[in-house]
Amino acid sequence: MTIWVHGDYSEESLALLRAATGGHRVIFAEKASSVLIAGKPDPSLAEADIAFGQPDPESCLASRRLKWVALSSAGYTRYDTERFREAFKARGSILTNSSTAHADPCAHHVLAMMLAFSRQLLPSYRTQLSDRSWPYNERRDASSVLTGQTVVLFGFGAIGRRLAHLLTPFEMQVIALRRKVYSEPGVRIVPEEDLTRVLPLADHVVNLLPENEETRNYVNRRRLGCMKPGARFYNVGRGTTVDQPALIEALELGRLAAAYLDVTDPEPLPPDHPLWSTKHCFITPHTAGGRKAQDLHIMKDFLKNLAAFEAGTALQDRIV
Amino acid sequence: MTIWVHGDYSEESLALLRAATGGHRVIFAEKASSVLIAGKPDPSLAEADIAFGQPDPESCLASRRLKWVALSSAGYTRYDTERFREAFKARGSILTNSSTAHADPCAHHVLAMMLAFSRQLLPSYRTQLSDRSWPYNERRDASSVLTGQTVVLFGFGAIGRRLAHLLTPFEMQVIALRRKVYSEPGVRIVPEEDLTRVLPLADHVVNLLPENEETRNYVNRRRLGCMKPGARFYNVGRGTTVDQPALIEALELGRLAAAYLDVTDPEPLPPDHPLWSTKHCFITPHTAGGRKAQDLHIMKDFLKNLAAFEAGTALQDRIV
Repeated sequence: MTIWVHGDYSEESLALLRAATGGHRVIFAEKASSVLIAGKPDPSLAEADIAFGQPDPESCLASRRLKWVALSSAGYTRYDTERFREAFKARGSILTNSSTAHADPCAHHVLAMMLAFSRQLLPSYRTQLSDRSWPYNERRDASSVLTGQTVVLFGFGAIGRRLAHLLTPFEMQVIALRRKVYSEPGVRIVPEEDLTRVLPLADHVVNLLPENEETRNYVNRRRLGCMKPGARFYNVGRGTTVDQPALIEALELGRLAAAYLDVTDPEPLPPDHPLWSTKHCFITPHTAGGRKAQDLHIMKDFLKNLAAFEAGTALQDRIV
Repeated sequence: MTIWVHGDYSEESLALLRAATGGHRVIFAEKASSVLIAGKPDPSLAEADIAFGQPDPESCLASRRLKWVALSSAGYTRYDTERFREAFKARGSILTNSSTAHADPCAHHVLAMMLAFSRQLLPSYRTQLSDRSWPYNERRDASSVLTGQTVVLFGFGAIGRRLAHLLTPFEMQVIALRRKVYSEPGVRIVPEEDLTRVLPLADHVVNLLPENEETRNYVNRRRLGCMKPGARFYNVGRGTTVDQPALIEALELGRLAAAYLDVTDPEPLPPDHPLWSTKHCFITPHTAGGRKAQDLHIMKDFLKNLAAFEAGTALQDRIV
């Protein structure tokens, strides 16, 4: 088989790749500055049986040989079209993403943001950077614990599952909104039609939604209006799933206590964008899925799937 | 019995106190601005069988009636003397603190600091407050996850136990240094003499030590020198247990990756103190044990202990 590889991998990752693909031909696309950057159309993709990285979606559809596209990202917006899904289904090709490799850092990031708010870390850091006062009583009175609170997750896949697991010792009520309702230990999965019933219960609302036609502006004025006054909103899904002017309004009016956004629309967020200076709005530059040597984790998961592909067994993180 | 109460309690807390102490006489000391502020010598303390709050230690020793001192804090430095312990033991008096009520917010605070570092939240916030750039690759490469890392705790009581519990889903190796070595599920308790063997293993070193003669400057140049290069240090114990000039040196030389201090010596830390501007040193104003309505949690734990005291059964958080 021919395996097309695209991304910027360390020597350690490439050594693993070489060791696991001895019997195959491996071709490399033009190097990208990150394993998450979209690939340009590449004629060599036409020779590949497997494409690993961020191959151009049109080139994937045009290829006659391609049996499996393994995305190095958790997001798969550019491939999440009716046309792509149907074409891949019709010819029996597989699409996987790397959500397992991204789930742990993403879940860490959400919990970090939840606890940073609860423990007032950012206001204290701001004090350190400015007047170095010691607002002991004020900061203590604004502090809280997660224990016994309620969290609602928009979307429930690998990240939500890991987050729910990290939250276990906090004895929180975890409610997750998901299209397919099924039972999951420790998590109450609810369908769309129950959202307005559970949203007013949440101290924390975590958006994990991918970007597609149904999720665009999902967090709109109406849904923001259903949230409990003083609730906190977190977004590690996609920026386009939030009606940003409505979020700014909810924060400026003090209806929401805070928003922690790892994703925005657009990205990078221009320095003059109003979100940067919105009251109690905190922004990280799309770093939730990242970690040192993240490429190694992505590579290991790809090679685990490659072994399954060769053996004809089920692949992890399969989308189509 | 006469119960002396000192501190600033909400109406809700006082209602609970009234309901539980109908058969007793309750006298109130001059109101303090916080339940953690040291009380001044108060003549009315001489009439009390029970003192709840922060009674003056000399007045406690002088009293003939006092059978139980219930501290509203987790810290008990001012009472932790040979003389106080011996006097209380000799006359069969009891000393308790409120470590259970403080344990959950303290453990939250430590985990918040650990995750804030792992997810690079403070550098990202600084970017938001300054040039609003989008250092995507740089911030991702500096990010990490706690999963599989090693943490060493100095001291292991109510806070350490809660922290170890919160860390369970991260599958970390938790090692705790404690005078009394005993077995604890999920935690490796080690004695003092093994410290230099375990310290080089730790990605995170968490100081939970109280202040007393044995712990003063415990985190000294020698012990800081045993830590793994790039380790992170956290202090929610007491500021005096750290040799601060040695810590500043370790941070400025880059031997330690970061320090998160909730306690310092002195407090408040004067605005011109070098710790404020030390490289990768982050300071919160002694807020680890705090939370909204914290006085209610302290009151509830006191009343639970009062019932036990009346029934002659074992008290929670007993020190002497």
